[in-house]
Amino acid sequence: MKKKLIVDVCLSPYLYPVYHKEDSIVVVIDILRATSAMCTAFHHGADKIIPVATIEEATEYKKQGFLVGAERNGIALEGFDFGNSPFSYTTEKIKGQTIVISTTNGTLAIEASRNAYKVVIGAFTNITALCNWLKLQNRNVLLLCSGWKNRINLEDTLFAGAIASLLLNDTELFKSGDGALAAGFLYSSARENPYKYLRNSSHTERLAALGLKKDIKYCFALDQTTVIPVLEGKYLVKLSH
Amino acid sequence: MKKKLIVDVCLSPYLYPVYHKEDSIVVVIDILRATSAMCTAFHHGADKIIPVATIEEATEYKKQGFLVGAERNGIALEGFDFGNSPFSYTTEKIKGQTIVISTTNGTLAIEASRNAYKVVIGAFTNITALCNWLKLQNRNVLLLCSGWKNRINLEDTLFAGAIASLLLNDTELFKSGDGALAAGFLYSSARENPYKYLRNSSHTERLAALGLKKDIKYCFALDQTTVIPVLEGKYLVKLSH
Repeated sequence: MKKKLIVDVCLSPYLYPVYHKEDSIVVVIDILRATSAMCTAFHHGADKIIPVATIEEATEYKKQGFLVGAERNGIALEGFDFGNSPFSYTTEKIKGQTIVISTTNGTLAIEASRNAYKVVIGAFTNITALCNWLKLQNRNVLLLCSGWKNRINLEDTLFAGAIASLLLNDTELFKSGDGALAAGFLYSSARENPYKYLRNSSHTERLAALGLKKDIKYCFALDQTTVIPVLEGKYLVKLSH
Repeated sequence: MKKKLIVDVCLSPYLYPVYHKEDSIVVVIDILRATSAMCTAFHHGADKIIPVATIEEATEYKKQGFLVGAERNGIALEGFDFGNSPFSYTTEKIKGQTIVISTTNGTLAIEASRNAYKVVIGAFTNITALCNWLKLQNRNVLLLCSGWKNRINLEDTLFAGAIASLLLNDTELFKSGDGALAAGFLYSSARENPYKYLRNSSHTERLAALGLKKDIKYCFALDQTTVIPVLEGKYLVKLSH
């Protein structure tokens, strides 16, 4: 019998060292809103994205003339070109450009997993394209949730559960780690009404308080794009698939 | 309005530093089987338990004449008095004794949280007594899952969700962190048939393969005792409540 590939979920960047395997594909997840925005930026024609962890790095790139998005705690920082709202990444601004994105949590997850076999970016906005691609890779898959300041959050866990469930439907190909089981069960029970589940999540409350319900709705909409961003050195680029 | 207390869930000892608050009560959870066995040991009259992290420490205590339980990967180690099976902690062996327990994961969680305001031991076997006590403490509660080699596991997450749900029923007293929300949702969807959920968990599979189904059943049985073990220095003792 062919050895099955493992799908697992790592619920915080802080936990990544415990789950690291050199030969796994890591899917970085920051639904509200970094990875959703990254998919959108590529969909609207961005050439490359440089994810950075600190405001200092973002400022440095801004001085060098790059278009730079920077936010902390859900709020776009002054003096930069974008925050994290997918709606700010429009074609006229970014087509053909290399842009820099610094975010509270998503960038930390990318940095944590940088040494994996491959790091790709996942969001509800590219879920089908991403799953189809993952099924063809013959690799273990680790779904890495960005969480919130290294704590777990509900929306990333739910999305990880959605991907895990889609992959694990192929029972010949994949088997599940406990993290993927837990996230998958969560997703199964939430899928009929994810908003009910997410209404009480801390970051949904935070964004709603900031008047960003439109963003939340966009970030939970499926298949806005078929783009899969992939990490190449310091850049995210569009995967050819 | 009175400020609500926070109930949250930390899914791995490795994540504990992210959740640590000096003034919280930490409930250490290792359902299969360390914390279940600890509750049972006190119920059967143990005077004190010394939890130790390494086999070396366990061996040292054994040389000093203590009754010592030691297991790794679900298997009792030779040359010691018990493994982790709750059934091995019988009254005739342990009444009035100080016993030493070293376990794969539970002891690591106790060590990680040692500096919290108070560390108590939770299991399905003492769930009602524990919840009733927690509601009277006027403290934030952190439910700390021992997991499996720092990864999350399903049975500890499920139990954390059970406790979180019971506490959060008191909406005037408690509010929920995202970890508790996720674990609580998991528990809600699993409660009608937890065995279905747990059948595929890695440690359930591991114990079942070792012929330990009786242990699993015991560890999921509610309210076998009203004992709440609490950490005092290097000892676990029975909380007076």
